[in-house]
Amino acid sequence: MTHSRTVELEGHIIDSGTMQRCFGAVMDLGGSFDVERFDVGKHETEESYCRLTVSADDPETLRDILHELHQNGAVLEDPSEVDLVAAPADRVVPPDFYSTTNHPTEVLYDGEWIAVERIEMDCALVVDPDPAADAGEGNRADASRGEDGSPRAYTKTLNAVEEGDLVATDQSGIRVNPPERPRSGGGAFGFMQGGVSAERPSESTIREVAEELRAVKDEGGNVMVVAGPAVIHSGAGDALADLVAAGYVDALSAGNGFATHDLERSIYGTSLGMNVETLEHPRKGHKHHIWTISEIIRAGGIEAAVEDGVVTEGVMYECVRNDVDTVLAGSIRDDGPLPDTITDAVEAQDAIREQAHEADIVIMLATLLHSVAVGNCLPSTTKTVCVDINPATVTQLLDRGSAQAIGMVTDIGTFVPTLAEFVLGDDA
Amino acid sequence: MTHSRTVELEGHIIDSGTMQRCFGAVMDLGGSFDVERFDVGKHETEESYCRLTVSADDPETLRDILHELHQNGAVLEDPSEVDLVAAPADRVVPPDFYSTTNHPTEVLYDGEWIAVERIEMDCALVVDPDPAADAGEGNRADASRGEDGSPRAYTKTLNAVEEGDLVATDQSGIRVNPPERPRSGGGAFGFMQGGVSAERPSESTIREVAEELRAVKDEGGNVMVVAGPAVIHSGAGDALADLVAAGYVDALSAGNGFATHDLERSIYGTSLGMNVETLEHPRKGHKHHIWTISEIIRAGGIEAAVEDGVVTEGVMYECVRNDVDTVLAGSIRDDGPLPDTITDAVEAQDAIREQAHEADIVIMLATLLHSVAVGNCLPSTTKTVCVDINPATVTQLLDRGSAQAIGMVTDIGTFVPTLAEFVLGDDA
Amino acid sequence: MTHSRTVELEGHIIDSGTMQRCFGAVMDLGGSFDVERFDVGKHETEESYCRLTVSADDPETLRDILHELHQNGAVLEDPSEVDLVAAPADRVVPPDFYSTTNHPTEVLYDGEWIAVERIEMDCALVVDPDPAADAGEGNRADASRGEDGSPRAYTKTLNAVEEGDLVATDQSGIRVNPPERPRSGGGAFGFMQGGVSAERPSESTIREVAEELRAVKDEGGNVMVVAGPAVIHSGAGDALADLVAAGYVDALSAGNGFATHDLERSIYGTSLGMNVETLEHPRKGHKHHIWTISEIIRAGGIEAAVEDGVVTEGVMYECVRNDVDTVLAGSIRDDGPLPDTITDAVEAQDAIREQAHEADIVIMLATLLHSVAVGNCLPSTTKTVCVDINPATVTQLLDRGSAQAIGMVTDIGTFVPTLAEFVLGDDA
Amino acid sequence: MTHSRTVELEGHIIDSGTMQRCFGAVMDLGGSFDVERFDVGKHETEESYCRLTVSADDPETLRDILHELHQNGAVLEDPSEVDLVAAPADRVVPPDFYSTTNHPTEVLYDGEWIAVERIEMDCALVVDPDPAADAGEGNRADASRGEDGSPRAYTKTLNAVEEGDLVATDQSGIRVNPPERPRSGGGAFGFMQGGVSAERPSESTIREVAEELRAVKDEGGNVMVVAGPAVIHSGAGDALADLVAAGYVDALSAGNGFATHDLERSIYGTSLGMNVETLEHPRKGHKHHIWTISEIIRAGGIEAAVEDGVVTEGVMYECVRNDVDTVLAGSIRDDGPLPDTITDAVEAQDAIREQAHEADIVIMLATLLHSVAVGNCLPSTTKTVCVDINPATVTQLLDRGSAQAIGMVTDIGTFVPTLAEFVLGDDA
Repeated sequence: MTHSRTVELEGHIIDSGTMQRCFGAVMDLGGSFDVERFDVGKHETEESYCRLTVSADDPETLRDILHELHQNGAVLEDPSEVDLVAAPADRVVPPDFYSTTNHPTEVLYDGEWIAVERIEMDCALVVDPDPAADAGEGNRADASRGEDGSPRAYTKTLNAVEEGDLVATDQSGIRVNPPERPRSGGGAFGFMQGGVSAERPSESTIREVAEELRAVKDEGGNVMVVAGPAVIHSGAGDALADLVAAGYVDALSAGNGFATHDLERSIYGTSLGMNVETLEHPRKGHKHHIWTISEIIRAGGIEAAVEDGVVTEGVMYECVRNDVDTVLAGSIRDDGPLPDTITDAVEAQDAIREQAHEADIVIMLATLLHSVAVGNCLPSTTKTVCVDINPATVTQLLDRGSAQAIGMVTDIGTFVPTLAEFVLGDDA
Repeated sequence: MTHSRTVELEGHIIDSGTMQRCFGAVMDLGGSFDVERFDVGKHETEESYCRLTVSADDPETLRDILHELHQNGAVLEDPSEVDLVAAPADRVVPPDFYSTTNHPTEVLYDGEWIAVERIEMDCALVVDPDPAADAGEGNRADASRGEDGSPRAYTKTLNAVEEGDLVATDQSGIRVNPPERPRSGGGAFGFMQGGVSAERPSESTIREVAEELRAVKDEGGNVMVVAGPAVIHSGAGDALADLVAAGYVDALSAGNGFATHDLERSIYGTSLGMNVETLEHPRKGHKHHIWTISEIIRAGGIEAAVEDGVVTEGVMYECVRNDVDTVLAGSIRDDGPLPDTITDAVEAQDAIREQAHEADIVIMLATLLHSVAVGNCLPSTTKTVCVDINPATVTQLLDRGSAQAIGMVTDIGTFVPTLAEFVLGDDA
Repeated sequence: MTHSRTVELEGHIIDSGTMQRCFGAVMDLGGSFDVERFDVGKHETEESYCRLTVSADDPETLRDILHELHQNGAVLEDPSEVDLVAAPADRVVPPDFYSTTNHPTEVLYDGEWIAVERIEMDCALVVDPDPAADAGEGNRADASRGEDGSPRAYTKTLNAVEEGDLVATDQSGIRVNPPERPRSGGGAFGFMQGGVSAERPSESTIREVAEELRAVKDEGGNVMVVAGPAVIHSGAGDALADLVAAGYVDALSAGNGFATHDLERSIYGTSLGMNVETLEHPRKGHKHHIWTISEIIRAGGIEAAVEDGVVTEGVMYECVRNDVDTVLAGSIRDDGPLPDTITDAVEAQDAIREQAHEADIVIMLATLLHSVAVGNCLPSTTKTVCVDINPATVTQLLDRGSAQAIGMVTDIGTFVPTLAEFVLGDDA
Repeated sequence: MTHSRTVELEGHIIDSGTMQRCFGAVMDLGGSFDVERFDVGKHETEESYCRLTVSADDPETLRDILHELHQNGAVLEDPSEVDLVAAPADRVVPPDFYSTTNHPTEVLYDGEWIAVERIEMDCALVVDPDPAADAGEGNRADASRGEDGSPRAYTKTLNAVEEGDLVATDQSGIRVNPPERPRSGGGAFGFMQGGVSAERPSESTIREVAEELRAVKDEGGNVMVVAGPAVIHSGAGDALADLVAAGYVDALSAGNGFATHDLERSIYGTSLGMNVETLEHPRKGHKHHIWTISEIIRAGGIEAAVEDGVVTEGVMYECVRNDVDTVLAGSIRDDGPLPDTITDAVEAQDAIREQAHEADIVIMLATLLHSVAVGNCLPSTTKTVCVDINPATVTQLLDRGSAQAIGMVTDIGTFVPTLAEFVLGDDA
């Protein structure tokens, strides 16, 4: 017996690759399709429309196919309301709960399509019928919205689900809007391109990143920088500090190692014991690293160390002075850690999540761990720039599927100074 | 003033990504399009048809756009005959000569679409109106074909073009047929997938390669192996020799280094002076490598060394014994070289070209140089398997755009033994 | 004015590279030396002795030089007692506190050289004059020792230092014993070799690891495995589970991702939604991953899920069944996390530290984060095997300076099955 | 029965690591040693002396040990004359011929130690008793030397050996002088350091390379640049052209691909069809690459194309204009090739050899193939700088054992412009 459903797709579904992916998914999963109507956009600005019926030999296969089509933006021809089930306990979701994508999403609730807030992948989707009755906080929707009492929908990590939350199950009444290919060229920002070619001109690409950064700031946007310790080892700390001082960084997401190396540079003039300018004394056993941590503990934290004059330059110094929203997330490889480091992973994730949801562009500099953590919290609509010397790292970060991403396999030690020069120009 | 042309596309142009690429190219290059007709294949087995008019503000842009569409299979609505110009001298092609893709191609000559022989990218396309009058050789079409005197078309490298050859110019009268997405799943063979994910199960993927290898041999197909010296260093020589001995390798394309390491193993039991089994004596200054070359020179070549009993095992030994079509191509980093090594790059390329054109599947093992050389000669329809520890190498090889390719980032030293075990099974 | 001190070195100081490093350090740092006596060991089993006076133009340079020599095992000719200062507050160490190396270390206290317990680098060194009066816990010395009331010395991370702890400062009265080159060949285990050559035979090297693993178990030793999620993606989970089931793994140190992938494999037969055997359905949006976490939360943890029959195979299953000491350390990129994951980095580090101090051999499988975390806690005398596809990861791990380490750049997906086959042989 | 020989070593044999390697080799190979005398240099400027007797159970082991010691500079206590055997035929060397290292070497002939000319590893060592009687050519000693008729010694590749050449066998009467650790710090140039750490400050390291480059030119030295096509793709062509124009490059060693990309840039303003400044039109099928080759063939070569005004800028243009000694070596992956490309590997190697023997410093830019080819011809005393984005490439190049080498894992597209800026400064 054949099981069938009819779905609809519309938009720039040909050149965005949507139709290719949908047809491919049906064939890969062993189903078949019947195109009932296909109106192609006659010009590049006109949208297309497709209605097709997909069939499979068993309901499980059909369900898998519909799941794939759903994620590519297909909607059932005659959508029913979202199916909500109350969470039986804190952190426990109903079986068959809906797991979000990182694309803009809507739910059909009470006859209306409501936009889902705080879009992020791999979360539960919670609907709050009466937000006014609720003083939601933390992993919840913005307090500033929904004051009119109309229902709201937002994502919640499994960890944040509370008993009684109305959690969406299955995928009925949920509509995903994957990003479409922009009508005009994105320059160095590729559209949904997973691969990374090394065969691109480096300085021209950095120039495009610089122009994008200036454009975002000109529009009052939020720039988030994610930085690994290699930024400091490689001697790029001064250039990043310059960008912070000039107001080009709104949020910094890093780890204990990054901060310690940067602070060591300010206190002792070295990084891992090596003088970054003269290349002298590169010795393994040097104690500056652990002494730096000890000094900051003694001062009572980074801000106090800046106030006390213990720290007088560098990225952390400029972040304190310029009120940059800074999150130092702990990890199991940390020395110390510094008193400022958030050692609990869930707490740190929540802090990163707040930063990520504010960002208009994220610049990921030579850190896989922190970049993945941030990337996990980003909607597909946020611009991202991923820079690493290891092509596998860049590939992994681009694979997340940001609609507008630049991946560069380059040396962070020359990238940041060149970027700073292009961004700051004569002001530097 | 607007310049326009109308082109047609047909086939599985949606799920093969053709339409996406064509629409994208028009937009990227600053043109616009007008879809005049679009008949979508209703089922997965039905082909689609599209007629569209593309426009641009100047003839150069239109030409660039048409070039892109042409390479994706678009044909001018009312195609004219191929435009041939005689080569003015040996190795000199007419300005604006047509440079081939690696896809199956036809030319419209004398009212008929003729299939182009010896498909290979970046070549000139030569039409021979009267093959019978010609005793073509070398970089020319097969002598065994075209005996009826009907016109023929084939590719020629720039280097092989002779004065008077009729060389296609522009792209009129030329039709390219890019590979289409296969209707049934290709298993581990991805369709036109450039990127390489490391997140695939290794042994299962090797099992698929083994099954493909057996399938090709079962159908009487030709298996070509391209191997770098790391196959021997890594201890995988015995496994490759087993595959050769069992008849699974029809052609071997390698270099002087590969052969020397393999022969050292047979003569001295070492590779670069290290005993591959016991890991003893890994010393840089060891003389076995250069002594091996000297021994083979003394013997008069590899075949003579096998006959004389100087070489008694290994990959080269099995290739001699099993009449495997072997090409050792020289390079500037060679020691020696061995007398069997073809030191002229053009001559070596021609020998590789002959192998590549015969191959039904090509297994590329841990060599960028030889794999690229072979890949340059392959039509997009030949199956390829690329194995290397360096993801950038695998990415570069897959970027060529074989329609059916498996890329694996893995250790050649465990890959080949595992493959041999899966292929040979109980016979081993 | 010249500042000078006289130091002594003894042992296999020539072939272990000690003299080379010491002479080099003096010259690099701008000092000079005067060899007062040098008795070279006449045979390979005889130790050498060197007394030299080092001089520098200023006390800071002399101090830096002495620091380097100290770390290489040099002792001041006439050593004074260790210089102890009480920690002024919790987590606050005295200025100029001594930061430990990962080599066996002794302190001269009350006229006796006492061995420092729990050797680990970048820690404070605490002396407890009267252990009997102290119910030491956590980051402190073993409760089972020092019952006789004799003074003890141990390492403490900065984080664990408590007000009043007697912390060693400067380096007087402290003696470091760096590992010496073993008199008989270490086979695949290189002595202090930082670099990683890809030119080693893979299967022979894996065979050496297997023999070492069996030897450690035959002697009743403790085997610690550090594993990343790629072990599961790459299809190597079954082989690792076999090693656990056969008793070859005493401790497992991993993260939330590793455990989740392994559990998904047991519950749904997939890894990241892909069937690891058939390679079917490799789709990004698959929900198995997040559903797995939800199932384990619902069950109340991994052990409960095993007891309830929710999880019936895999690495985590075998760890529960075989009472393997398992630590799942959280990180900011975790989904969920699982209830078993330790989310606080400091707490997780302490748990890892306990495992690391017990281990006789550590096998690091395809994880940089967890391997570095473990490596930070290891004395230089623990054997380590580091396996990763990325050469930079292997280099970084070997750089720590374990005296006996094997680094392999290979595919974890073929490494673990091959290792299991060599270890388990006919028993498998 | 024990077999023994006594050898002597002298020089900075402790801090250069010589003693460590010699003692290690004896133990690794299963022998034993007896130090008969050891005079250690009391100060850093004084040399040491060691006489030791090595013993083994069989003559083969003793021979292997002596071979290792020999390569580290040990000389038999009472050396005999070099043992010469006439080559029986062209390219055929006597069995047991001596294979050279890349270290300065002398032979004891007719009672005198003669310095071996044209030092290069893996060659035969030929002695010419009467050079005056000989009109040496090609792979032979310099015609300008030995005019006094005194005997001379030089290296010859196997390929260049002629019937009757007097070839050294065994290692008697041959003395190797491995480089010693320089007495004063080599800055960024490490002494015999194989490994490559990414944890170095990029711009400071580039500054050291720039200073070295200026220093070599100030002393009238010869700078050789080895460049891969990525230099052009990455947009660094202009910067390299600037260095050539300013006289900082005496020799360029590259391939057909490098030259073609550079020429395409001059003729069409693109690289692989992409406009390097605007990043527009990055399309695979672009014909500029093959058209460029065709244009140069038509012009009759690069020099003719420059003279005809076909090529008006770029690296090749500046090389022609500044009479830079340029070698384009062919390879099997070449398109075309250009008429200037030397397609025979042996002929190309000889041309590279001439360049390499002249060089005082070699800068290797993003090419493994050409860098290895050049590296094979270099004595260990030539300074080398190896730059590549792939750490494995840099490691492989440094492993050759140049006494003074800098390895940088960085992006060639930012390295060359930064280097040019530091070298040319205000002149640029």
